[in-house]
Amino acid sequence: MLFGAIESGGTKFVCGIGNENGEILERVSFPTTTPDETMGQVIEFFKNKQMDAMGVGSFGPVDPNKDSPTYGYITSTPKTKWRNFNFIGELKKHFDMPIGFDTDVNAAALGETEWGAAKGLDSCVYMTVGTGVGGGAIVEGKMLHGMLHPEMGHILIKRHPEDHFTGNCPYHNDCLEGMAAGPAIEKRWGKKGIELQEVDKVWEIEAYYLAQVVVNLVYTISPKRIILGGGVMKQKQLFPMIRKNVKELLNGYVETKEILVDIDNYIVSPGLGDNAGLCGAIALAKRAYQG
Amino acid sequence: MLFGAIESGGTKFVCGIGNENGEILERVSFPTTTPDETMGQVIEFFKNKQMDAMGVGSFGPVDPNKDSPTYGYITSTPKTKWRNFNFIGELKKHFDMPIGFDTDVNAAALGETEWGAAKGLDSCVYMTVGTGVGGGAIVEGKMLHGMLHPEMGHILIKRHPEDHFTGNCPYHNDCLEGMAAGPAIEKRWGKKGIELQEVDKVWEIEAYYLAQVVVNLVYTISPKRIILGGGVMKQKQLFPMIRKNVKELLNGYVETKEILVDIDNYIVSPGLGDNAGLCGAIALAKRAYQG
Ligand SMILES: Nc1ncnc2c1ncn2[C@@H]1O[C@H](COP(=O)(O)OP(=O)(O)O)[C@@H](O)[C@H]1O
Ligand SMILES: Nc1ncnc2c1ncn2[C@@H]1O[C@H](COP(=O)(O)OP(=O)(O)O)[C@@H](O)[C@H]1O
Ligand SMILES: [Zn+2]
Ligand SMILES: [Zn+2]
Repeated sequence: MLFGAIESGGTKFVCGIGNENGEILERVSFPTTTPDETMGQVIEFFKNKQMDAMGVGSFGPVDPNKDSPTYGYITSTPKTKWRNFNFIGELKKHFDMPIGFDTDVNAAALGETEWGAAKGLDSCVYMTVGTGVGGGAIVEGKMLHGMLHPEMGHILIKRHPEDHFTGNCPYHNDCLEGMAAGPAIEKRWGKKGIELQEVDKVWEIEAYYLAQVVVNLVYTISPKRIILGGGVMKQKQLFPMIRKNVKELLNGYVETKEILVDIDNYIVSPGLGDNAGLCGAIALAKRAYQG
Repeated sequence: MLFGAIESGGTKFVCGIGNENGEILERVSFPTTTPDETMGQVIEFFKNKQMDAMGVGSFGPVDPNKDSPTYGYITSTPKTKWRNFNFIGELKKHFDMPIGFDTDVNAAALGETEWGAAKGLDSCVYMTVGTGVGGGAIVEGKMLHGMLHPEMGHILIKRHPEDHFTGNCPYHNDCLEGMAAGPAIEKRWGKKGIELQEVDKVWEIEAYYLAQVVVNLVYTISPKRIILGGGVMKQKQLFPMIRKNVKELLNGYVETKEILVDIDNYIVSPGLGDNAGLCGAIALAKRAYQG
């Protein structure tokens, strides 16, 4: 089986061909400019490729509701050129095959349950902490949708008492993304995260915020595993700090073996590493093919 | 079709017989004392009743995972006499029929999608604000389970700047339940909620906290409707205040018609009123019967 996969991000589109085992056989990438230009390159790449289905994991918000008249659209994104762009409609003009569509992070969560850190589980959250903070979820074996899809980057958090950064989310200032995404770190400390590796306070504050979203996820979605990826999570020292804060915040309230005995396997890095997004799009294609 | 329904709460057990339309034909209640005594009364009530299936919506935490060796147990409850009580095992000794089992609030959410305020939807959250705060969820048509089940009463919230109450959650002090449940109101103001109806500040602070959980739910589970029940929500003036705070907190980030156009139908009272719990147990029985 051969699948066409598109991971469409705010700065670049990654396109590839993969198989039913999540193996990536070919990959290219294009900068995200206008729908005309970028989609032109995407279509050119896939044209004449042998494929059984396609999958698209996209930056959002998107409309993943098959019964909706705007199914397959990127909807209210602040990237104005992509607002109300009929992504699946455009692909369908050129490719007559099943096409799966969801957010990049719901796709990544799906890919992680197929081949990655949540393999074999019917429930997980995948959260990326990078230029933004975003998360997707698998619940009872399916990608989570409802009114919309998860947008967990913007949850409310308590401020660290020593943190006087105002936050830089254009909507909310000091929501999770506004306090903990890569650009927030850079703005708060005047240097990129990667240059701050040795400054303990940076990661203490970062872990304080990320632990809060983990705890709120435990109380709401109750995922079987929480996968934290994205550029900022390359700072591996964050993991033990987050786990410690999570235990302190839960304070014995949730007595599951995942938390009490095995938290090192509960809050983890992506099993698919930097391929989580593209593999997720392959998983979307596979699911679309299976119907 | 006739269903036996049990709503097991921390202070009382409500038992009843209902039909496939969620109509309650008979109802009794017993105080929650010891498993021996209370379950004796429950079994006595249902003995020789005509029933096709039973449903149990229980206080928790419970183990709703059918593959687990402790499926059907109440697990780590602070009510020590009920800790590790094999609820379904006990019923199965006396009643040879399908028995559905879940948390009281997951059951209530299910009942609301069958016959109540979320009728016809495949997604909602039901939250009760009473002696405690608890919530259940339907996602993609199913009750939400993962590592455990939702425990949304304990999510982290930001303090209202004028609120100096320390909070009374025994685990977390100032989590949502510690700040916003009925007993928190009573402790903060020295009077029961019902006697404080005319004191605007009480409800301003209450709505400030409840709006935060709504917003975090929108960002995580993204339910198609949020139902707020329980004793405290009898203060109907809370609804418009919560809706207003939710809109302010989201600040345009989630551009769905539910939020922008129709928030009065997004954050609502239970359609089943005080029967949400018992009807939920009937719905559990119906689902168990259908297999
Ligand atoms: N090793 C690192 N340590 C700390 N921060 C990093 C590291 N690598 C990247 N980042 C930060 O992560 C952000 C980029 O996130 P990334 O996940 O790589 O891309 P994107 O979110 O745009 O897809 C930037 O703000 C960058 O400073
Ligand atoms: N009309 C009311 N206004 C404000 N608070 C109320 C009202 N009725 C009950 N409460 C409060 O709600 C709590 C009881 O919640 P309830 O949902 O009735 O029971 P439980 O949660 O025990 O099942 C008490 O703390 C009580 O003070
Ligand atoms: Zn934000
Ligand atoms: Zn608590």
